[in-house]
Amino acid sequence: MEKAFWEELQEYNRRDIYPFHMPGHKRNPVAAGLCDPYLSDITEIEGFDDLHHASGILRDAQAAAAALFGAQESRFLVNGSTAGILSAISGCLLPGETLLLARNSHRSAYHGAQLRRLSVRYLYPRPEERYHLNGGIAPEDVGEALDKEPSARAVFVTSPTYDGLVSDIGGIAQEAHKRGRILIVDEAHGAHLQFHPAFPRSALESGADVVIQSVHKTLPSLTQTALLHFGRDNRLDEAAKERIRRFLSVYQSSSPSYLLMASIDRCRQMLEREGGRLYEAYIPELMRFRTRMEGLRNIRLVGRELEGTAAIAGTDPSRLVFAAPQYVRSGPWMEEKLLAEHRIQMEMAAPGYVVGISSCMDTPEGFARLAQAMEQLDREMPFCLRKRALEKTGHSQEEILCRARNEAVLPIYEAADREGVSLPLRDAPGKISREYVYLYPPGIPLLVPGERVSGKCAALLAQLLREGLDVRGLDPAPGDWMNRQTGPEEAWRLRVCI
Amino acid sequence: MEKAFWEELQEYNRRDIYPFHMPGHKRNPVAAGLCDPYLSDITEIEGFDDLHHASGILRDAQAAAAALFGAQESRFLVNGSTAGILSAISGCLLPGETLLLARNSHRSAYHGAQLRRLSVRYLYPRPEERYHLNGGIAPEDVGEALDKEPSARAVFVTSPTYDGLVSDIGGIAQEAHKRGRILIVDEAHGAHLQFHPAFPRSALESGADVVIQSVHKTLPSLTQTALLHFGRDNRLDEAAKERIRRFLSVYQSSSPSYLLMASIDRCRQMLEREGGRLYEAYIPELMRFRTRMEGLRNIRLVGRELEGTAAIAGTDPSRLVFAAPQYVRSGPWMEEKLLAEHRIQMEMAAPGYVVGISSCMDTPEGFARLAQAMEQLDREMPFCLRKRALEKTGHSQEEILCRARNEAVLPIYEAADREGVSLPLRDAPGKISREYVYLYPPGIPLLVPGERVSGKCAALLAQLLREGLDVRGLDPAPGDWMNRQTGPEEAWRLRVCI
Repeated sequence: MEKAFWEELQEYNRRDIYPFHMPGHKRNPVAAGLCDPYLSDITEIEGFDDLHHASGILRDAQAAAAALFGAQESRFLVNGSTAGILSAISGCLLPGETLLLARNSHRSAYHGAQLRRLSVRYLYPRPEERYHLNGGIAPEDVGEALDKEPSARAVFVTSPTYDGLVSDIGGIAQEAHKRGRILIVDEAHGAHLQFHPAFPRSALESGADVVIQSVHKTLPSLTQTALLHFGRDNRLDEAAKERIRRFLSVYQSSSPSYLLMASIDRCRQMLEREGGRLYEAYIPELMRFRTRMEGLRNIRLVGRELEGTAAIAGTDPSRLVFAAPQYVRSGPWMEEKLLAEHRIQMEMAAPGYVVGISSCMDTPEGFARLAQAMEQLDREMPFCLRKRALEKTGHSQEEILCRARNEAVLPIYEAADREGVSLPLRDAPGKISREYVYLYPPGIPLLVPGERVSGKCAALLAQLLREGLDVRGLDPAPGDWMNRQTGPEEAWRLRVCI
Repeated sequence: MEKAFWEELQEYNRRDIYPFHMPGHKRNPVAAGLCDPYLSDITEIEGFDDLHHASGILRDAQAAAAALFGAQESRFLVNGSTAGILSAISGCLLPGETLLLARNSHRSAYHGAQLRRLSVRYLYPRPEERYHLNGGIAPEDVGEALDKEPSARAVFVTSPTYDGLVSDIGGIAQEAHKRGRILIVDEAHGAHLQFHPAFPRSALESGADVVIQSVHKTLPSLTQTALLHFGRDNRLDEAAKERIRRFLSVYQSSSPSYLLMASIDRCRQMLEREGGRLYEAYIPELMRFRTRMEGLRNIRLVGRELEGTAAIAGTDPSRLVFAAPQYVRSGPWMEEKLLAEHRIQMEMAAPGYVVGISSCMDTPEGFARLAQAMEQLDREMPFCLRKRALEKTGHSQEEILCRARNEAVLPIYEAADREGVSLPLRDAPGKISREYVYLYPPGIPLLVPGERVSGKCAALLAQLLREGLDVRGLDPAPGDWMNRQTGPEEAWRLRVCI
């Protein structure tokens, strides 16, 4: 290595690339007190409590978070929302029980079902037709599914989605609760919702029983920090709560970082004291930006027009989804151009759109830079990209989730431990996957261990690879396969159960 | 709260309390480049790779770590050694298989067995008579146990122990390997061993197959950072390695902190470039300190005199165990005095001793302060503490482990999910525990879910509580129980299986 990894990291910050991606602090120093990190990095010494048995200063810090977020109880997470999702699922269900899981959930929810040896039934989001996004989860679909699966102990949904689409959590909670079921909401992308009326209602305000929020994604906290909340209505029995608390100390380091915990607490205090001021400055700026983007001809900044369609109850204005599904590879093209020509790093690219994350730490300069860049891309797009035949528009990973339904023939936990053999994608259809295959970001599995690979799924995976997207869980093809004659169907391999 | 948690943390650093505890960086700024933490805190953006599918800069950084530590492959851990231990156990064994586990292991090893639904057989460390410490694990005991348990797929031992005692890993590896078994070593407290000949041989040098090291405990890295290594001899089959890699992304956040990863990489580079100089300055200082401590009359700085006894193959001179088992509560007394009167924070106190952690980041001033303090404590001890009747000396948590063997009547995973009822400690004997009960630190379970509570174990737990030690896993008694008539047997409660 010319330069060490940690040195490259220092370099990066000097390169003036504006972040429309997580973490939500946008690399603005938000806690002067917290540098140098080594000076704040201690362990469970006298007076500094213990996250896994908080009875002092950390109990108080978590209580302050619960008060701010309106939870009955809140827990600091130093292993990301991942730890909260694993613990919520492991604590709410017992081995062999059934989880009703929204199919567009992050893979950590599938991991929770795998570790806890649950059987899983899926809820599919309603397909959104205009941009081929995942829509919301319809409350009536939850009701039906629960009636069909009386054994399902808990419902797990993700809202907002990576694209900022919010489901009717209130309605879903009602369907679950009137049947005596628990609702767990992965709100990793919605920790900011409650801090301004311009945002849709948060899951806690809507009656969810367990809510997991990433603090680092949309609020100013260090990466890998998150919160697990118990809902105020206290529908979760004490035994389940206690199991969740116990699993939090199973899935998280017994040496939790005081730096990460301090950054959660600093974020909490900042929102308490300066939150009003921050959002009163940020929201109007954001809305001016969105209005200006209405002038684009070829690119759409996705927004409220989707509300009321495809079970989408609300849209998060802070999530910047620029869509141009009518052009081939418009998503990757926008992402590359923004970085190379405008020094703007977005969060992710799907075939037909890019996603940017904005937060209360964004600056007017940042929005101005993005606005000018998008206006230029909007002009250039027709000259740079090929139009896509209309019937071929649908290749976002969201649409794959809605379309390529693979039949689940083995429980995840069983398939994941089976002997495996690696086959070219071409030969995968009909076989049972042993892997999670997903686009990263967002990390929603397109294929789950135990699912029989459908021909459509294999074809769509090949299509995504052809479009140069980052598909994970396949055995990588030699780097130059794209320049050779072989297509991805030959070059990439999938491990399937023997 | 008067002051917020994160503000108290800033305060603490201004209080000039010298740390003889982890993290090993001792709050010395070791990576100027890493302040402000928010500036180095990015996510998986262009050019910065992805820990869970490292193919660029993070692959190289991990390869550099493997080269330095002499591993076949090394992985960065951002969820502490906990994540490495869970992944090693989950990857090396399949559900229903048997793990041969050293009973003095950290609870994360028990959690691994619980999550993976393993049956567990225990290896007991040899009891060390002089200071009532846990001795080492004897290779012949491993051989015997494996012959008795042909179904045991893997052996898990902890070396060095929290007290710095090292087992004959080479001999244990031979016993395991000649029977075709895998050896996993929790070397969380031994990441520094290979960096100077004054230390015992490291587990990787001794032929272990999977080794987990905390980078933050004894080396200069941020808390919650660790490494998982595969041994050079490559005895682990590819399927197991691949399962371990997969479990690392199950048990760790999908948003790993770049700050934590950078700190591992910075530590690696520092050891490569300045390691020689650092240890050439530190080791002589440490040895001078140990020689000076030989002048103590009542307190012993535990050391080489233990080698060759109780299956102890080596002792880590950097681990500072000050023992005075002949006095009642000498451990807590020393810890309190050091903090209150000498502004020195130690790592932990057991009834008969205190443990301090030194590292290459310690200063001559730090050692001088500790030396003077210990000399004063040595003079004061006879006037402050009651002598303990000799047959009563043994109450360190180590001895409890060697003595209070509770019969395991249910698998951990089964007991942990059973319905529970909370009973006073007095009524616990004969019942089956549903909880892990342990002293923290070090976090070695004295009681494990599924174990029938022995009368001796209950009595010893009560004794530890009476001595004011931090026993975890019992339902806390009202804060003032010590001042009331009721003893801990009435005041503290244990959850047992119904």
